[in-house]
Amino acid sequence: MNRAMNQAMNAPLTALDSARSSATGPSLAATMRQIGGDARAAARALALAPAAQKNRALAAMAKAVCTASATILAANAQDRDEAKAAGATPAFLDRLALDRGRVAAMADGIDVIRKLKDPVGTVTASWRRPNGMRIERVRVPLGVVGVIYESRPNVTVDAGALCLKAGNAAILRGGSESFRSCRAIHAALVEGLTEAGLPAASIALVPTREREAVGMMLAGLDGAIDVIVPRGGKNLVGRVQTEARVPVFAHLEGVCHVYVDGRAKLAMAKSIVLNAKMRRTGVCGAAETLLVDRAGADRLLKPLITMLLDAGCEIRGDAAVLAIDRRVKPATEQDWSTEYLDAILTAGIVDGVDAAIAHIERYSSHHTDAIVTEDRKAAEKFLREVDSAIVLHNASTQFADGGEFGFGAEIGIATGRLHARGPVGAEQLTSFKYRIRGNGQTRP
Amino acid sequence: MNRAMNQAMNAPLTALDSARSSATGPSLAATMRQIGGDARAAARALALAPAAQKNRALAAMAKAVCTASATILAANAQDRDEAKAAGATPAFLDRLALDRGRVAAMADGIDVIRKLKDPVGTVTASWRRPNGMRIERVRVPLGVVGVIYESRPNVTVDAGALCLKAGNAAILRGGSESFRSCRAIHAALVEGLTEAGLPAASIALVPTREREAVGMMLAGLDGAIDVIVPRGGKNLVGRVQTEARVPVFAHLEGVCHVYVDGRAKLAMAKSIVLNAKMRRTGVCGAAETLLVDRAGADRLLKPLITMLLDAGCEIRGDAAVLAIDRRVKPATEQDWSTEYLDAILTAGIVDGVDAAIAHIERYSSHHTDAIVTEDRKAAEKFLREVDSAIVLHNASTQFADGGEFGFGAEIGIATGRLHARGPVGAEQLTSFKYRIRGNGQTRP
Repeated sequence: MNRAMNQAMNAPLTALDSARSSATGPSLAATMRQIGGDARAAARALALAPAAQKNRALAAMAKAVCTASATILAANAQDRDEAKAAGATPAFLDRLALDRGRVAAMADGIDVIRKLKDPVGTVTASWRRPNGMRIERVRVPLGVVGVIYESRPNVTVDAGALCLKAGNAAILRGGSESFRSCRAIHAALVEGLTEAGLPAASIALVPTREREAVGMMLAGLDGAIDVIVPRGGKNLVGRVQTEARVPVFAHLEGVCHVYVDGRAKLAMAKSIVLNAKMRRTGVCGAAETLLVDRAGADRLLKPLITMLLDAGCEIRGDAAVLAIDRRVKPATEQDWSTEYLDAILTAGIVDGVDAAIAHIERYSSHHTDAIVTEDRKAAEKFLREVDSAIVLHNASTQFADGGEFGFGAEIGIATGRLHARGPVGAEQLTSFKYRIRGNGQTRP
Repeated sequence: MNRAMNQAMNAPLTALDSARSSATGPSLAATMRQIGGDARAAARALALAPAAQKNRALAAMAKAVCTASATILAANAQDRDEAKAAGATPAFLDRLALDRGRVAAMADGIDVIRKLKDPVGTVTASWRRPNGMRIERVRVPLGVVGVIYESRPNVTVDAGALCLKAGNAAILRGGSESFRSCRAIHAALVEGLTEAGLPAASIALVPTREREAVGMMLAGLDGAIDVIVPRGGKNLVGRVQTEARVPVFAHLEGVCHVYVDGRAKLAMAKSIVLNAKMRRTGVCGAAETLLVDRAGADRLLKPLITMLLDAGCEIRGDAAVLAIDRRVKPATEQDWSTEYLDAILTAGIVDGVDAAIAHIERYSSHHTDAIVTEDRKAAEKFLREVDSAIVLHNASTQFADGGEFGFGAEIGIATGRLHARGPVGAEQLTSFKYRIRGNGQTRP
């Protein structure tokens, strides 16, 4: 075990724990300010670091994570024991749990990010002015990314590695229940950074469980943080969106729709609807509402609803859907805008693509919505008029994912309209500047 | 005169004036909420409006502004009389003043914007996934843009027309001193919108001088405003940046540098430095600091400083510059980060391009910085390492302008790193979404 890891693993937790409910002392504020300042300085170094050096660090990070597997698992066991004793649910414990396979997957994830194209320095536009000046728009890193997450310790790796790829410094604040796991993983990341000659502060982990640290990050650490990415449930994201004084890349929820048009093929509709709802019900791209065109309802509605009920999905329907099967429950007004993240679906009839679009504009969270149809005109109308980050024709809403987009990795999915929208990958973690080359031009 | 204008011109100002210092009543809050809701609805219509319809509206707006010239000038005369009576400075009165030429220039400005390429619907990336899905990233409007400005009434036209071009609704809040002028101009814009069948609420003017309206806009009008653009002095921009709960496109100041490298040609350096500082001293792209390479100081420093002094520029210098000419005053630490917006320049010696970059990173506002040199390596280093929105080689900093970039028009210049940076034109006033076309793909 290397020295950085030793330090990380041996630091006493008791002192930190005891500070959890105490008032915020000057020491926490000073620590956080220091982290912010160091991250800002590291960001400057990272912005100028060549792709090869960042990739060397990523390779070393992947190796260090593998090597530290036993250490990470031991820390994780302590976290799980503590969480179990505190009465955590099985679902929570599963999110928290690491095993050899999950640690290996973290290392593989770093390698995937290493192999991505470096977005920094890419010229995204270039033109010559009548006076002979050449203007280029070139990608540069965003700066410092603050990431606030919950129990999954692997976010430490995903977020740290993706920020590094795009030349950004990261300030990570993991869930207090996964504190020891995150600290052990972070030590391995720092080892990789140091090996490649990059500043250790390029990826910082907030070294305390004190909750006040989150508020300080949301305030931007005196201008040190350029953007905040929350990773976790609706409570966390909602708090971050409400309180943050810096821009946030996030989605609060994914109330995703599948609209099955009157001119849809039944087999394709069944396959897409089943996948969109049931492949994984807990992901943000899972469908929560099914809309069926009245024009095709006779042919489409019963097979779709029966299929879903038989697959174990609860259906909350309007009058037409209720009439199909006695297992259907009535939908309340609230149901149409609910993200269940479970095997439950709201279903109803609409009058064609225009009514579907109007319904979606009213109830959707503007995350991901799909149309199933063989009618090209209806499809193009839907793709054009539905104002969501991702709109699909004849494909499942569960493709709402950076990996499925070919981004290699994502730090999250955003539904905001500024800067980043949809899956946030390495490219979305960059800004740009203009470079102008002249030969003495002055402005008349 | 048409009806909309009649209404605009005849509404009594006294009632509004009397409300200026009163507490915010429920009526102002209700009015502002209504404006926000109407703008949101208009934004939806604008997002789907074809380019031709938006261009018809722009053409009608330009015509209506010309036709209303006398009405606008009469309203402007009233504003100026009031401002003069209140003791406004000549500079203020000049910014407020309109004449036939300025009104014609506003109409011409609309025509320039009409002729720009419509950014909405442009596919900026497109790729096919291994499973056959085609993903496109396509530009869509941002939504609702709030514009807060000061005395210049022409911002009403520039901001309204540029937002419309990009399919955005605009909520405009002009300076209270130019209230009547803005109202008359706005009536002409609404006439153009209506003539083309677009909602009148596409461009809203806050119909009151009450200052509380600004605070409500900064809070986002219950989520109705997507981004705020402040147009005005440092006090306004600073307040907006501090208080806004929505993203802001702005620059607080332009502390722009010209670095004259040891391998610069003297003639080019003189021409660029003179232009960067003295062409117009009050614009954000005006140079505020001159750095000269020690290696070329013997050859370059004296001619540059003498030229500037002879041109009427005050110089505040370091020891080396003080030794050149007794007209030079000593620079304080504060001077190095001061935006004079006047015929004043801070000047000093640095040890080569690395020291110049370090100086700029420390003191620049990251707006616009330039290097003058014949050394390609030094130039590329400067262009790469200076972290400002615009970096130039052998060209004047006064090119920091959307028009000079070929954007046709700009709503401002941003120094933030997210979404928009540098001149903010029609393209920067858009967001994007992903369109996916499949043939039944489901996620494994």
